[in-house]
Amino acid sequence: MRLPQAYSGNVFICSSDDYASSKAVIYGMPMDYTVSFRPGSRFGPGRIREASVGLEEYSPYLDRSIVDLEYFDAGDLLLPFGNAAKSLDIIAEFVRGVLDDGKIPVGLGGEHLVTWPVIQEVYKKYPDLAILHFDAHTDLREDYEGEPLSHSTPLRKAAELIGPSNVYQFGIRSGSKEDWTYAQQSGIHFHPFVVAEPLKSELPSLAGRPVYVTIDIDVLDPSAAPGTGTTEAGGITSGELLEAIHAIARSGVNVVGFDLVEVAPIYDPTEMTPIVASKMIREMLLGFVK
Amino acid sequence: MRLPQAYSGNVFICSSDDYASSKAVIYGMPMDYTVSFRPGSRFGPGRIREASVGLEEYSPYLDRSIVDLEYFDAGDLLLPFGNAAKSLDIIAEFVRGVLDDGKIPVGLGGEHLVTWPVIQEVYKKYPDLAILHFDAHTDLREDYEGEPLSHSTPLRKAAELIGPSNVYQFGIRSGSKEDWTYAQQSGIHFHPFVVAEPLKSELPSLAGRPVYVTIDIDVLDPSAAPGTGTTEAGGITSGELLEAIHAIARSGVNVVGFDLVEVAPIYDPTEMTPIVASKMIREMLLGFVK
Amino acid sequence: MRLPQAYSGNVFICSSDDYASSKAVIYGMPMDYTVSFRPGSRFGPGRIREASVGLEEYSPYLDRSIVDLEYFDAGDLLLPFGNAAKSLDIIAEFVRGVLDDGKIPVGLGGEHLVTWPVIQEVYKKYPDLAILHFDAHTDLREDYEGEPLSHSTPLRKAAELIGPSNVYQFGIRSGSKEDWTYAQQSGIHFHPFVVAEPLKSELPSLAGRPVYVTIDIDVLDPSAAPGTGTTEAGGITSGELLEAIHAIARSGVNVVGFDLVEVAPIYDPTEMTPIVASKMIREMLLGFVK
Amino acid sequence: MRLPQAYSGNVFICSSDDYASSKAVIYGMPMDYTVSFRPGSRFGPGRIREASVGLEEYSPYLDRSIVDLEYFDAGDLLLPFGNAAKSLDIIAEFVRGVLDDGKIPVGLGGEHLVTWPVIQEVYKKYPDLAILHFDAHTDLREDYEGEPLSHSTPLRKAAELIGPSNVYQFGIRSGSKEDWTYAQQSGIHFHPFVVAEPLKSELPSLAGRPVYVTIDIDVLDPSAAPGTGTTEAGGITSGELLEAIHAIARSGVNVVGFDLVEVAPIYDPTEMTPIVASKMIREMLLGFVK
Amino acid sequence: MRLPQAYSGNVFICSSDDYASSKAVIYGMPMDYTVSFRPGSRFGPGRIREASVGLEEYSPYLDRSIVDLEYFDAGDLLLPFGNAAKSLDIIAEFVRGVLDDGKIPVGLGGEHLVTWPVIQEVYKKYPDLAILHFDAHTDLREDYEGEPLSHSTPLRKAAELIGPSNVYQFGIRSGSKEDWTYAQQSGIHFHPFVVAEPLKSELPSLAGRPVYVTIDIDVLDPSAAPGTGTTEAGGITSGELLEAIHAIARSGVNVVGFDLVEVAPIYDPTEMTPIVASKMIREMLLGFVK
Amino acid sequence: MRLPQAYSGNVFICSSDDYASSKAVIYGMPMDYTVSFRPGSRFGPGRIREASVGLEEYSPYLDRSIVDLEYFDAGDLLLPFGNAAKSLDIIAEFVRGVLDDGKIPVGLGGEHLVTWPVIQEVYKKYPDLAILHFDAHTDLREDYEGEPLSHSTPLRKAAELIGPSNVYQFGIRSGSKEDWTYAQQSGIHFHPFVVAEPLKSELPSLAGRPVYVTIDIDVLDPSAAPGTGTTEAGGITSGELLEAIHAIARSGVNVVGFDLVEVAPIYDPTEMTPIVASKMIREMLLGFVK
Repeated sequence: MRLPQAYSGNVFICSSDDYASSKAVIYGMPMDYTVSFRPGSRFGPGRIREASVGLEEYSPYLDRSIVDLEYFDAGDLLLPFGNAAKSLDIIAEFVRGVLDDGKIPVGLGGEHLVTWPVIQEVYKKYPDLAILHFDAHTDLREDYEGEPLSHSTPLRKAAELIGPSNVYQFGIRSGSKEDWTYAQQSGIHFHPFVVAEPLKSELPSLAGRPVYVTIDIDVLDPSAAPGTGTTEAGGITSGELLEAIHAIARSGVNVVGFDLVEVAPIYDPTEMTPIVASKMIREMLLGFVK
Repeated sequence: MRLPQAYSGNVFICSSDDYASSKAVIYGMPMDYTVSFRPGSRFGPGRIREASVGLEEYSPYLDRSIVDLEYFDAGDLLLPFGNAAKSLDIIAEFVRGVLDDGKIPVGLGGEHLVTWPVIQEVYKKYPDLAILHFDAHTDLREDYEGEPLSHSTPLRKAAELIGPSNVYQFGIRSGSKEDWTYAQQSGIHFHPFVVAEPLKSELPSLAGRPVYVTIDIDVLDPSAAPGTGTTEAGGITSGELLEAIHAIARSGVNVVGFDLVEVAPIYDPTEMTPIVASKMIREMLLGFVK
Repeated sequence: MRLPQAYSGNVFICSSDDYASSKAVIYGMPMDYTVSFRPGSRFGPGRIREASVGLEEYSPYLDRSIVDLEYFDAGDLLLPFGNAAKSLDIIAEFVRGVLDDGKIPVGLGGEHLVTWPVIQEVYKKYPDLAILHFDAHTDLREDYEGEPLSHSTPLRKAAELIGPSNVYQFGIRSGSKEDWTYAQQSGIHFHPFVVAEPLKSELPSLAGRPVYVTIDIDVLDPSAAPGTGTTEAGGITSGELLEAIHAIARSGVNVVGFDLVEVAPIYDPTEMTPIVASKMIREMLLGFVK
Repeated sequence: MRLPQAYSGNVFICSSDDYASSKAVIYGMPMDYTVSFRPGSRFGPGRIREASVGLEEYSPYLDRSIVDLEYFDAGDLLLPFGNAAKSLDIIAEFVRGVLDDGKIPVGLGGEHLVTWPVIQEVYKKYPDLAILHFDAHTDLREDYEGEPLSHSTPLRKAAELIGPSNVYQFGIRSGSKEDWTYAQQSGIHFHPFVVAEPLKSELPSLAGRPVYVTIDIDVLDPSAAPGTGTTEAGGITSGELLEAIHAIARSGVNVVGFDLVEVAPIYDPTEMTPIVASKMIREMLLGFVK
Repeated sequence: MRLPQAYSGNVFICSSDDYASSKAVIYGMPMDYTVSFRPGSRFGPGRIREASVGLEEYSPYLDRSIVDLEYFDAGDLLLPFGNAAKSLDIIAEFVRGVLDDGKIPVGLGGEHLVTWPVIQEVYKKYPDLAILHFDAHTDLREDYEGEPLSHSTPLRKAAELIGPSNVYQFGIRSGSKEDWTYAQQSGIHFHPFVVAEPLKSELPSLAGRPVYVTIDIDVLDPSAAPGTGTTEAGGITSGELLEAIHAIARSGVNVVGFDLVEVAPIYDPTEMTPIVASKMIREMLLGFVK
Repeated sequence: MRLPQAYSGNVFICSSDDYASSKAVIYGMPMDYTVSFRPGSRFGPGRIREASVGLEEYSPYLDRSIVDLEYFDAGDLLLPFGNAAKSLDIIAEFVRGVLDDGKIPVGLGGEHLVTWPVIQEVYKKYPDLAILHFDAHTDLREDYEGEPLSHSTPLRKAAELIGPSNVYQFGIRSGSKEDWTYAQQSGIHFHPFVVAEPLKSELPSLAGRPVYVTIDIDVLDPSAAPGTGTTEAGGITSGELLEAIHAIARSGVNVVGFDLVEVAPIYDPTEMTPIVASKMIREMLLGFVK
């Protein structure tokens, strides 16, 4: 018998079932072992997919429809619970394969530490890489209580790997004194508290460069995304995040990979967080994958 | 025995118990059979009434109190579950009676399809009718998967009935490619993404005309109204919706009917959605019913 | 115009709109000012009505349907917020009217203190009155921190009024040392922890007597009724409460009034508490009102 | 690249990725258009899969592990929203394929109407079929407000198809007077209110016969399964439902298909309903698929 | 044995355990007996402390860390339930002691009436006192249904005590006609609907003066703080409230006490309200306590 | 100034503020880093204390009041997030101090792994120790995915330390095949699925012996305790757990320490889980501490 094509909650809406012809590959990273406050983001990828069922296929912002774009949803990676190091290896291996196949990796988190192995792989392929980072937190710690594999650290690692001057941070409004000083003095393009305006100023200088975009959903105000572990007052609206995504889409940068992390559905019985996240994924697919 | 006057949860706060002397008539339309994503708006009208108990009687925006205005709350219409066609007939008949009695119908939804029979009746009485439509979605489909009675279609029907150039849409940010093209090319006064500013620009040209106002609560951002079936990121604040209502109130248009639809309480354990909706009803009563 | 008959959330399902011909009168008492732990029962009556929409009309337990019984829903009494004494007066006056009209009062709470004025009125008419009380708490305090009008006191007042030996308590599992001693020594028919079996033993001796039944929803285990202010582990199932109601219905006692109190919907996003409560009301209507 | 095997939220835990060698096939039916009270079961199958991640592989009740059994998860069928007739056709076609391939269909609902096309297909293959039905409701209506395709009707249709004397109902505690009379007089083996004991009495007479098992999760008490549309007080515990499943497993009947329906996650922020449902599926897989 | 220092949920993060050397004293006032709509703020202080565990110690807005500031958390005052008058006496006595010891009182509510005894004590010590009041409601009633001790009255009492011209109100958007007239005509510096801009205009004239800051969390929009009893659409964002706090911190006024009231956690399963409140407390500690 | 005695949410109700004269010491262990499914129990201890405010002081089951017993609440231990090994050391050191001071340790979890260091310390003092373990899960794994410090392992470690024949397990209904075999073959007194009856059979043989009681709240059915990470259908009622505690209290065993773990409040917006847990703590204090 010809088997049915799964849809609700199983794959991101309108995913192709043909890996070979797809330009982008969605994959989930259900890991939240290193978070410091409220865990639960391991269930984020599944709920973003579930919420995607409610999306229109067409983006009026970009005048493009996801039915005109081929992307594959690989499901969630099988990560060994509680073993962060091994989980990162599995992520790295998967993303390496996606990149080798000439496709754009589209990650769904999970905690933000999952971005670290992805950046390492993307950087191997694109040594000229720049990172656009949207977050409430610096994520610039060297370690957390002595543990270097923490969700507080991925951007520090990334900055040290690709050079701070290739990292652009937006919307940051929380961090330790040490993180903040590093952000200000290391050469990072650091734009705390605000997002859309400084982004638009920075983008022209990045035209043509390979860029990795990583969005921690907590860059949004708690009102717009309560379903995340460490929500921070004073954030931006979902409208401003859409504006940022659209600015990147129209900027001429070459987005070579992106992710959206830290959706923790249990804190949000309204489901607005996965719903908002699924729309951001649609807009990034349509805006970043040519 | 003289029976007590009911209050909590039963009628909108400060409703008169005298139909004859009332200028406006509130009625609920507990119907949600045609929604495509998350159903539940049939419980909206009851919860808006319940939330109204927490309202002050006085509007400092309009310097007027609902104790100085007589309106009647007719309760919810008795709609046959699952039978959309017959339900619309019942709504039409009721609204016809209200209009015949020279009163202003104030509808509480329920899914947006309920607005269709209301507009038909209002249009019969006011052939010069214009519609002000606030929504996240175009609601301009010809049908939904072949079904013409869908909550995706009421404004299309309305546009075809009264002429697209008499329809004004604000805040729209989701639709199919076809809907969007229709919105842009049919002659509709189409203002996607934004609300208060274009509304203020359009209002002068409508002065003196009969106007029907229909608000889908999802015109608000998910942060302000999570309790609705198909919430869309990038919406307006409740402050901007108040600004829009007040602009209409002060504009010199003749509001001959209005509704607020798609409150689905189950998605919002905080109850902020019916609470916000009840305030909008108060402001519309005070601003639109002279 | 002939006005429509309201239904959803406004009145208990299948209520008659003819007070005169009704045998029982439902009324809400939205009062919760004297509770000591988690307030919110003022919203109970409205939500019990809302939940009643989901009920079948027919009871397979009693082989009788609510369409074959006429009862009127008077809505909620208009109680002055925060003024317990005056609120009780209003309740008393209303119930007196219902009794004078030869009808059975069916109260929806609200906190348990609302039962006190009802019992006073019922006792005036039926000096031979017995009370069947189902609750997790004794409600036998003389006062609470010096205040005699407290939701901890109604049964004490009732016992002193009609004589402890005319009070039957079931399911009690919480109280102060003083309450407990009073319950055991005053002559009350006191059956702590258990419900159905002792009830069946007591009922034969009550045959033919006028009886008032008062159910605090917290007699149920927290698992069956989380939406109440002071939930107590170790309670009975909803099945056992149904069994108790049916035993009374079949016993030959003359139920002259009844109530169900302390539903506080905000603690129960599942809505199971008002749903269960609405079924108990249906069964009591069918079983107690001949 | 070799693609990863999806896991969390995508497929039922420990599903095989080899259809051909699987003995049973799990499939979701995300349909809830005909429900009369609280809709939302379309999201049930996805959440049951998500919850299955928390299951142990081993059943201590049956001393068997799901790693020792091969079953395939086909995902959710793609049903046209709002079109019940066409949805049932799609379900029928899929189940026919599964049966033709000699496998056992394991359905996840969705509203109970989805069981109707399944039974038709199973009956074609097994004319000697008996049905074991566990539910709070009779589901024996001929139609609902004139509509024959309603979630209140599937067992009536089934009884008329295979003969009432081949239908066994357990735990029923709600229905219309007409349904109840039909249940009692048609020849159905009708066991209202209770489950495990009458089931054990009936099973010996069914030994060796092909049996279809259909469980509406609302057979459980609201306390054990609040996440369903029409929850009914007075139900059984999850322990008793496990006991019933194990009794069937040990009885010698030949289970040729089964389903579990009506999980509506939005009403249950505790997630206990999909968690309980996923355990029942595990036990039925282990107990029914040899 | 040396006892451990408690942390989670017990004290505000980084509190000193040395009262003597602390400059500020946090204390909870778990009282909500006089609220008119949705009660529950008695649990606010405990949940604000619990949420504080998720805060960074460092404020990037003020470039200062709470580890560099000594403050003591005295826990919640033991208030006699239901006795407003006596509760206010206990609060007064406690605050008097804090002020006598030369420390800054930092109150956590509880309903807004708790601010009244605090202001009386602060005024005794600082006869030149000004009050900065951030709220959705005027709180200027003379009484509520005849009761002068109501959460609708504290600012009226305060205005009469210290003179209306020493009261500054921001963000107000709800009140009775009488309240509003009083606010406009009494000499209060009344800035309805808006916050940050008028505050910045007023602050220079207050430089050097002793100021008490009282924040009702409902000055925020419902989207940002759903967990409060009487939420009002049209409020400000948490970003604007931060801006207000920082403007005060930089203004040269002498903050001699402050509080944050009306957090009612039960209405907010997302926990965003106590999380936002805890950040505001951190910023006020860092900005106001030199 | 004499500081006020904290109460709400800060300490378990009626705790003494005198460590020296207390017979028992309550302490929280806010650790949940090793859980495999749904984390969040780190917030359990604080919420159990908060819920305790709603408790009566008197136990009618045991006819004793907590005001007649002196116990101290030490708050939560300060555990280094994410470092399980060091956290266990801190717990061990604290419990050693409590035992050295001749007091009974009363632990609030947190995940079940916290029981392991406690048992080690208790066993040092009482080499004749027996353990009574109430749980849905065996917790008998040697390791979890290679990690020996997992919440699946504490009872295995305990059994190996004190000898399997000194371990008594009740209510277990989930585990791996290996765990189950170990439970059955190692000499553990293993009573799967059931609790009260086998406990009563075992207790006489334990009279006079030092016993440690450890309760995982998930021994309760999901209906009675949804707020826990890994809830399992088929559990016992809160009434049966009370019965078990009372049986131990009356048995003549010498309870030298006890704990209650795995309350994870975020999964239970009804708050029934911490409410039930706080009652169990009251009963154990009254029943076990002489």
